[in-house]
Amino acid sequence: MKLYVGVDLGGTNIGAGIVDDKGNILLKGEVSTGASRPFQEIIADMAGLIKDLLKKGGYALSDIEAIGIGSPGSIDRERGVVVKANNLYWKDIPVKEELQKHLNIPVYIENDANVAGIAESVAGVCKGFENSVTITLGTGVGSGIIIDGKPYTGSHGVAAELGHMIIVVDGIQCNCGNRGCFEEYASASALIRDGKSAAKENPDSLIYKEVDGDLDKIDARIVIDAAKAGDEIALNIFDSYIHYLTVGIINIINLLDPSVIAISGGVSRAGDFLLDAIRESVSKHIFYKDAGSANIYLSELGNDAGIIGAAMLARAD
Amino acid sequence: MKLYVGVDLGGTNIGAGIVDDKGNILLKGEVSTGASRPFQEIIADMAGLIKDLLKKGGYALSDIEAIGIGSPGSIDRERGVVVKANNLYWKDIPVKEELQKHLNIPVYIENDANVAGIAESVAGVCKGFENSVTITLGTGVGSGIIIDGKPYTGSHGVAAELGHMIIVVDGIQCNCGNRGCFEEYASASALIRDGKSAAKENPDSLIYKEVDGDLDKIDARIVIDAAKAGDEIALNIFDSYIHYLTVGIINIINLLDPSVIAISGGVSRAGDFLLDAIRESVSKHIFYKDAGSANIYLSELGNDAGIIGAAMLARAD
Repeated sequence: MKLYVGVDLGGTNIGAGIVDDKGNILLKGEVSTGASRPFQEIIADMAGLIKDLLKKGGYALSDIEAIGIGSPGSIDRERGVVVKANNLYWKDIPVKEELQKHLNIPVYIENDANVAGIAESVAGVCKGFENSVTITLGTGVGSGIIIDGKPYTGSHGVAAELGHMIIVVDGIQCNCGNRGCFEEYASASALIRDGKSAAKENPDSLIYKEVDGDLDKIDARIVIDAAKAGDEIALNIFDSYIHYLTVGIINIINLLDPSVIAISGGVSRAGDFLLDAIRESVSKHIFYKDAGSANIYLSELGNDAGIIGAAMLARAD
Repeated sequence: MKLYVGVDLGGTNIGAGIVDDKGNILLKGEVSTGASRPFQEIIADMAGLIKDLLKKGGYALSDIEAIGIGSPGSIDRERGVVVKANNLYWKDIPVKEELQKHLNIPVYIENDANVAGIAESVAGVCKGFENSVTITLGTGVGSGIIIDGKPYTGSHGVAAELGHMIIVVDGIQCNCGNRGCFEEYASASALIRDGKSAAKENPDSLIYKEVDGDLDKIDARIVIDAAKAGDEIALNIFDSYIHYLTVGIINIINLLDPSVIAISGGVSRAGDFLLDAIRESVSKHIFYKDAGSANIYLSELGNDAGIIGAAMLARAD
């Protein structure tokens, strides 16, 4: 059986796992990233984590086909370089070269949203479908596009930036420089922003009560839980959130017509309350009703998606 | 040398041509569609046009590999059926079966916007590039997406509906049922709508003068020509048009990151005045400036695109 190592490199933690060629995690572990340190130290810790896993599982390095890494930011896949990743403070970091000083086997690297798409396609709700899109609703909005069973990364390696699809001409200023980007309306950050603003104006709202007036404690879960509980203020925010999210999903359907759309990331933990609302809203806006359209599911891989998708990078190559 | 017949089926005319496997038209002709007639008569005339061309060129039917048809509306490619085409008044019309009663060789059928994308990819400005998008700016807005050198039509055959990508949440009502669709802002019809409205309010504008106050004579060319001539009212409309068009193009770039974007359709006849404005505006809104982004060109195939792309359907299959 072929084995792979998948690494989920985040701004806070580095997760790694030994994964079989079906996408099953056999063993996994985690260390802190310590993102403010020199990259050599971070990558040495990454290598240490992988060596520990091999030791724990009784594997030799020669049992592993390749290491795949999912990283935030933009990636030069050919050279194995993270071109720019703001939350790691990285610019032109030769991750592959540095990791191979510690572990001399093939190393693949890919953007983390694309990795999530690969994970869903290999072992998640998009498994077995030729065309799928995984939408990650987190601090920002990312996406991974699978076409003909393979990750689609475009002609310059920067496709699938769904978070920066403009859905509101002249809308909210985005940090990408444009206005009205999807992630300004559909990310967890958007829920938090709107939750804070509404709680401030409505101290009788459940959102306000849940954090005892400490607005900085408001997160996406608190806003959605308040909506679930029937709080009117929170329901207004949630309905508006679903409205914008629907527009982004409809645009994906009208442009790419995938078989499946997977919703992942922190917001997806809201479960069926979220999924039912999305499905109901999207179904009202389908253009070609007779032709059929994408099934929408919540990701079931959770935090493992990063490790699984990264491990499958070598397989997808 | 392999030869194909390409048919460009429109609401007003049917064009057809004999095309070689490089996408060169050897011979072409045209008849009126007479769209209000029974489909059997329309397709009999289509067959007659093809037979005339064969006779003129001294070809036998056995010299032709296949017939490709580009049709408006939604298509069932497997069965060779036009599922729905409003401007032909067609619903579930068995075009392939009917045409093969007259000409018994393989028949392929595809949506006309996809056909335009194939034409650009085989013989136009997208030739030689793996990933390209052709945007047709006409009465509506259509698009043809080429991925890995092949037309991308999605999992239910209805991908590439760029005209119905929502760019203005809760914007102008579109006939698809949604609001704020790209084609409500970037089609020739949008230019005409805004030109009429501005001319009505500004009888001193060049647009008004060009049509002697007969607002129904306003077309996209008149609005753009007035802008070219420096008329302030027309320039405002044109600038706004470019603003919305830029948003759609930026969305294509951020989602699909193609090598080339081709602009075709009636509006593209505005030439460099349009192209320069698009390029300048788009360049200001690119996210990954370092990575490189799609080159934008005007289609040079003009009306021949429909015939060429249709003829290449069999080749692309």
